[in-house]
Amino acid sequence: MLSNIFISTTNCDIKYKNRDDLLFIKFNHPATVAGVFTKSSMPASPVLWCKKNIHLGKARALIVNAGNANAFTGKIGDETVIQTANAVANALKCKSEEVFISSTGVIGEILDYKKITHAIPLMSENFSNHEVAWDKASRSIMTTDTKPKLVKKTCTILGKNIELIGFAKGSGMIAPNMATMLGYIFTNANIAQDTLQKILVDAVEKSFNSITVDSDQSTNDTVLFFADKSANHHEISDSHDKNLHEFREKLDELCLELAKMIVVDGEGAKKLIEIIVEGAQTGIQAKNVAMSIANSPLVKTAIAGADPNWGRIVMAVGKSCPETSPEKILVKIGEHPLTQNGAKHPEYVEKVVHEYLKKPEVVITVNLGIGNASSIVWTCDLNEEYIKINKDYRS
Amino acid sequence: MLSNIFISTTNCDIKYKNRDDLLFIKFNHPATVAGVFTKSSMPASPVLWCKKNIHLGKARALIVNAGNANAFTGKIGDETVIQTANAVANALKCKSEEVFISSTGVIGEILDYKKITHAIPLMSENFSNHEVAWDKASRSIMTTDTKPKLVKKTCTILGKNIELIGFAKGSGMIAPNMATMLGYIFTNANIAQDTLQKILVDAVEKSFNSITVDSDQSTNDTVLFFADKSANHHEISDSHDKNLHEFREKLDELCLELAKMIVVDGEGAKKLIEIIVEGAQTGIQAKNVAMSIANSPLVKTAIAGADPNWGRIVMAVGKSCPETSPEKILVKIGEHPLTQNGAKHPEYVEKVVHEYLKKPEVVITVNLGIGNASSIVWTCDLNEEYIKINKDYRS
Repeated sequence: MLSNIFISTTNCDIKYKNRDDLLFIKFNHPATVAGVFTKSSMPASPVLWCKKNIHLGKARALIVNAGNANAFTGKIGDETVIQTANAVANALKCKSEEVFISSTGVIGEILDYKKITHAIPLMSENFSNHEVAWDKASRSIMTTDTKPKLVKKTCTILGKNIELIGFAKGSGMIAPNMATMLGYIFTNANIAQDTLQKILVDAVEKSFNSITVDSDQSTNDTVLFFADKSANHHEISDSHDKNLHEFREKLDELCLELAKMIVVDGEGAKKLIEIIVEGAQTGIQAKNVAMSIANSPLVKTAIAGADPNWGRIVMAVGKSCPETSPEKILVKIGEHPLTQNGAKHPEYVEKVVHEYLKKPEVVITVNLGIGNASSIVWTCDLNEEYIKINKDYRS
Repeated sequence: MLSNIFISTTNCDIKYKNRDDLLFIKFNHPATVAGVFTKSSMPASPVLWCKKNIHLGKARALIVNAGNANAFTGKIGDETVIQTANAVANALKCKSEEVFISSTGVIGEILDYKKITHAIPLMSENFSNHEVAWDKASRSIMTTDTKPKLVKKTCTILGKNIELIGFAKGSGMIAPNMATMLGYIFTNANIAQDTLQKILVDAVEKSFNSITVDSDQSTNDTVLFFADKSANHHEISDSHDKNLHEFREKLDELCLELAKMIVVDGEGAKKLIEIIVEGAQTGIQAKNVAMSIANSPLVKTAIAGADPNWGRIVMAVGKSCPETSPEKILVKIGEHPLTQNGAKHPEYVEKVVHEYLKKPEVVITVNLGIGNASSIVWTCDLNEEYIKINKDYRS
């Protein structure tokens, strides 16, 4: 395990009982840090804090609370962040700008910073870098996630053993909270900040930014990537450096595995749906169409019922891609072609596709027939559980 | 009632039993016609037919079937439309280009034109222009709508009595069919085609294009507006003509009433939600934000449960409007202000808003604080019924 990264978790009584809901991580080797944040114009106070400090590129600590998003909390919310950063900076003798902060939970409620700052001295005496501490970390940031999400990878850079550890929490917006996609990745590699930022953005685009539960984007979404340099190889400062090739592959795998875990743990989800759009003019066009299918409540409910109602896929293509036409597109569910020449495929057998759709993992492929670009996105089915979870009045 | 417009309905065995599913309307006075169609790149064959002929501007007949959309049916689908138009043209001794055609129902299944053409001779002997015929017309185009949708208005133009009659069917995408928004409006006014088109586009923008059930757009959406000139006033050829003022008001009212009927008859819907976005820089920006709120599954499920989870409204604003910020926006549910200075309003009482949200009609108002433009859209709540209706495997 990453031997210079230390973890402490506790219950600080923000919302949850009988579980840890505060995570404190310190970097004995100051880490280079990169980050990707929500594009919402209503970002939470801790998101504003991280965005402001990320370009400084140096992290000594990460602190995350679950149960309150500290979003839409005005100046009091900003003050909570400053007090938290100062308390951690005092404990570690570092600058407050080197403390990265996230929150997840209900929006619009004041987060009492004292609950966090009072916990910090005791947490500072209980750091661990054992495997079980990483598991605890991944559990402490959960809101209504049903499972923790933790992935580890190894590789080498310039002959040194490199570790990658990442954990995340769910992207669904889950009552009573507005839940959030939070992801944290840690490595002992030595990578320049702008390179770290670039490879993170690339990995996130193909993973966390290619999943959707219900098309809603949170005020708190954050992915942070920390590289503490303790592997002691020469710094790599070019994202195309061939010595980074294996590392980037492993990073991409790690992000994608976490992203898929988030999707299958979406509210009430029972199926993972992979949507491949090929034959597009551009990657952006391919992704737009894939997201249109992935966010269609009708496609998602049909798959929940194993109903090969493929007209709904055609509808979702039609509403998102004015550049194509019925004769050009090819739609497949699994390996079963559904369309040909702008009409139902002559060999289509509904019963066969119905059986296929009963599987827990389903692949939909659409070829737009107008180019060579492609994109893959992942989503989950939409069933009664989602409504139940999100509808019930908060008690 | 419009005395020169004649209606005939029958069951032609396309899908439904024990109800009429084919509508045939003839215009004894050839009507000027205007139309608005789906923007889908997968338009159904009858949509392509109407789009091609609408600029000729003259209608002698309208024919609509329910139960099969004749969409994504390739060249056979186009042939079905031509055969249908020819059969009607023969019966009425008119040109086939003067026959307007719509279909609604399942996508991708061949529509046997003989079922329609065989019915036409008998239907031609059973025309009526009585009130009950209009009611029958509004019922014959239903798919899984639970109620017919028919609205009448009267006014005067240049001293002549003018009638407006419109009927429509639901916009929700309803299993086992891909349902469609179809709307037809009839008047005895004498209005030039380009003027008719212009006032229809304006009316549709504020009504049928300002509603959403589940964000999905059908392959068949069509609104047609027929003016048969039988009121015998001078032709009006300027949409700003003050003699058209009252008529346009009534047309707007008619379209909005039909649109709201469609929303409250959305799948499983129990509430009408009106979303007002004010203080925007442009009308388009206001409508984007309003639609982002209206299409958020989380907002819609919260309202289904009368849960004043207003953080979800803030989230929907944040993801759709990069130009605003927390301190600028004001959010109200009913008359209850929820926000102030980027935080929860000091006078907000959750219980009061919870009680308000139990009402069958709910108003959400958001002021973006960055301009003077506004927009209103309507949607329905999202509850378990929607999933049930759309999930169940077609049997």
